Amino acid sequence: MPIVTIKLAKGRPVEIKRELVAAVTQAVASSLKLSPEIITVLIEELDRENWATGGLLHSDKFGKGYGEK
Amino acid sequence: MPIVTIKLAKGRPVEIKRELVAAVTQAVASSLKLSPEIITVLIEELDRENWATGGLLHSDKFGKGYGEK
Amino acid sequence: MPIVTIKLAKGRPVEIKRELVAAVTQAVASSLKLSPEIITVLIEELDRENWATGGLLHSDKFGKGYGEK
Amino acid sequence: MPIVTIKLAKGRPVEIKRELVAAVTQAVASSLKLSPEIITVLIEELDRENWATGGLLHSDKFGKGYGEK
Amino acid sequence: MPIVTIKLAKGRPVEIKRELVAAVTQAVASSLKLSPEIITVLIEELDRENWATGGLLHSDKFGKGYGEK
Amino acid sequence: MPIVTIKLAKGRPVEIKRELVAAVTQAVASSLKLSPEIITVLIEELDRENWATGGLLHSDKFGKGYGEK
Repeated sequence: MPIVTIKLAKGRPVEIKRELVAAVTQAVASSLKLSPEIITVLIEELDRENWATGGLLHSDKFGKGYGEK
Repeated sequence: MPIVTIKLAKGRPVEIKRELVAAVTQAVASSLKLSPEIITVLIEELDRENWATGGLLHSDKFGKGYGEK
Repeated sequence: MPIVTIKLAKGRPVEIKRELVAAVTQAVASSLKLSPEIITVLIEELDRENWATGGLLHSDKFGKGYGEK
Repeated sequence: MPIVTIKLAKGRPVEIKRELVAAVTQAVASSLKLSPEIITVLIEELDRENWATGGLLHSDKFGKGYGEK
Repeated sequence: MPIVTIKLAKGRPVEIKRELVAAVTQAVASSLKLSPEIITVLIEELDRENWATGGLLHSDKFGKGYGEK
Repeated sequence: MPIVTIKLAKGRPVEIKRELVAAVTQAVASSLKLSPEIITVLIEELDRENWATGGLLHSDKFGKGYGEK
């Protein structure tokens, strides 16, 4: 009964989340040979002013929003 | 000094949260024979569009809100 | 479908863990008016040399083991 | 720079873990249109005596080991 | 590539967060002799009605806000 | 009462952990103007075969051990 938590920058629309949880559940089920029914996926969205790498807030590095840049 | 984190669907009123943390603290203190004073309980509320089982978002499965259905 | 995580010092015997998960599940089910069946409880055991308060490792403060002292 | 944490029952061999992290990284990269290079995946293995559903330890429910049963 | 998560009461201004992630990154890099570039820091802000010690919500104990009192 | 969790590769000796928790506690206390006494630091050590970036296990990328390489 794996529990998967995905931390990411806040703001993706529900269509993307729907696709994300389906794809991740499928990847886990297939790798571990488990039924998708017993897999939980949680999405934790963080504001970029709450995420830092190299000691710098992502809101300072990348501006608002989400994604590669 | 146990730290308990409870992840649940967003939206319970504070009265329920007050009862929840009191009951969980009591359960941990009594099972582990510890003083309630050294027990921390954190509640992490997740929107149903951030929670999935079987590859499906709970907002799609259950609609908005929280609780058994 | 709440997910409860309990972080505590490593080393309780399985009898205590059995009692702990039963009591916590009951406390959550009763406070949130949910079926116990949909509640997950995870225990994360940490060595005292991986837990600190006030900047001091618990292995230094309390010695090896677990519990109030 | 998503961070994915997968909690599961302890004991899979490294071959399965290798496949799991590759598949999950690919699923996240593809759903979010991100480079796989910026995706982190962590595996947290829990002993079955540290995992409970319905108030019962999985070591009591399922015995030792991991997987669907 | 350490990942540091800081849970705290919600509401600090971005100036404080900026200082916090810089100081924590520096502390980790220096203690572990790692480049700051490979250190991630996440801030998770919790409402005081989602944080309890001794079985009491911090919103009941301390009122709204954040900080020592 | 901030709670800091540091996930890192398994294996540092206790001397390094002692220095790490002291330095991080000091950084948090000073940035947030809080007493060090109310700050908790947890260290979660992961085996390199449980940590992946870019879809590759760190045990495959870097071999056993911990640190920059």
